[in-house]
Amino acid sequence: MIIYFSPMRTKDEEKQEALFEATIRTVNDVGFAAASVSKIAKAAHVSPATLYVYYDNKEDLLVTTFMEIKRNFSRAILADFDQSLPIRDILKNLWHSMNKYISNNHEHFQFTEQFANSPYHDLVDREVVEKYFAPVLEVLTRGIEQKIIKDVDFDILAAFIFYPLIVLSNPSRCSDFQLTPENIDIAFNLAWDAIKL
Amino acid sequence: MIIYFSPMRTKDEEKQEALFEATIRTVNDVGFAAASVSKIAKAAHVSPATLYVYYDNKEDLLVTTFMEIKRNFSRAILADFDQSLPIRDILKNLWHSMNKYISNNHEHFQFTEQFANSPYHDLVDREVVEKYFAPVLEVLTRGIEQKIIKDVDFDILAAFIFYPLIVLSNPSRCSDFQLTPENIDIAFNLAWDAIKL
Repeated sequence: MIIYFSPMRTKDEEKQEALFEATIRTVNDVGFAAASVSKIAKAAHVSPATLYVYYDNKEDLLVTTFMEIKRNFSRAILADFDQSLPIRDILKNLWHSMNKYISNNHEHFQFTEQFANSPYHDLVDREVVEKYFAPVLEVLTRGIEQKIIKDVDFDILAAFIFYPLIVLSNPSRCSDFQLTPENIDIAFNLAWDAIKL
Repeated sequence: MIIYFSPMRTKDEEKQEALFEATIRTVNDVGFAAASVSKIAKAAHVSPATLYVYYDNKEDLLVTTFMEIKRNFSRAILADFDQSLPIRDILKNLWHSMNKYISNNHEHFQFTEQFANSPYHDLVDREVVEKYFAPVLEVLTRGIEQKIIKDVDFDILAAFIFYPLIVLSNPSRCSDFQLTPENIDIAFNLAWDAIKL
């Protein structure tokens, strides 16, 4: 089940948003194994019966929450996406909007990082996640065709143009390091040098 | 407390190694919050009283396990470290030995990834961890001085020469992607292009 959040929220949407946030908070606090449906329902101030109206079971709740985070993230970073710009500029804008989103939604990324290391990750429909980020894949494909970007596997490109920023944005990993606007630009230069032909 | 494993193991060392492996396994299975001292002792086939001979409490056990993983990792990747080689060759050798270690000790990395996202990470003495990897920092410093490597923060360099490999080596993250020897070399070329001046 995919949840849609609109600015005007119905009671249903409010409950689903409360469950979304409670799932992230509970998993980050106590881990995947200990995050029971009843704990999450309690944290969201709904009854377990209400939770089961929206979700089949714990797996459904966790996987849906993960998909929703990915969808929100893709929407946020693609909001100002301008295919007409030079490829380097498109990726630099993407880098900055990624940083903005990660900084403002740190708990969401903590959840996805833990999720990626959990057995629940096998339940994700990767094709759906890829569709969320299709414009990014299109830009990379175009860059490869135009011999601007190295012709290597997308997973390798992603390891250099997305993950370094996620690592650098994680305050628990780099405690003394400040991700200033200047450092974000410097790091982008390294990412670009990594992938450019 | 730091544990030393030697090829000839005493009873004490055997117990500590069992506790080390049981801590990693239990945390990976049930998460940090649910991994209680009694669960870990049970998984290691020792009594909780025995566990408390070696560790002050759960925090000590988890932090020591993390430090031990980092120390083993640094020892493994620095075993064939040859400061006399050109800097690019030193880093390429390091890249390959890192990949070898990560592939053979996947559960250890799963633990450290989860640990880095947990509140226990604040208890780690970062200076000690940095000392384990001092030869790597020395090579990078030398590369910067010789204008071979970009003069940027070590955290930024690390985000491009260490983390991409950790991501690419994680089978749960990139399911279709095969980290073949060829792909390891390709990925190293991107890492080198990112950091070289």
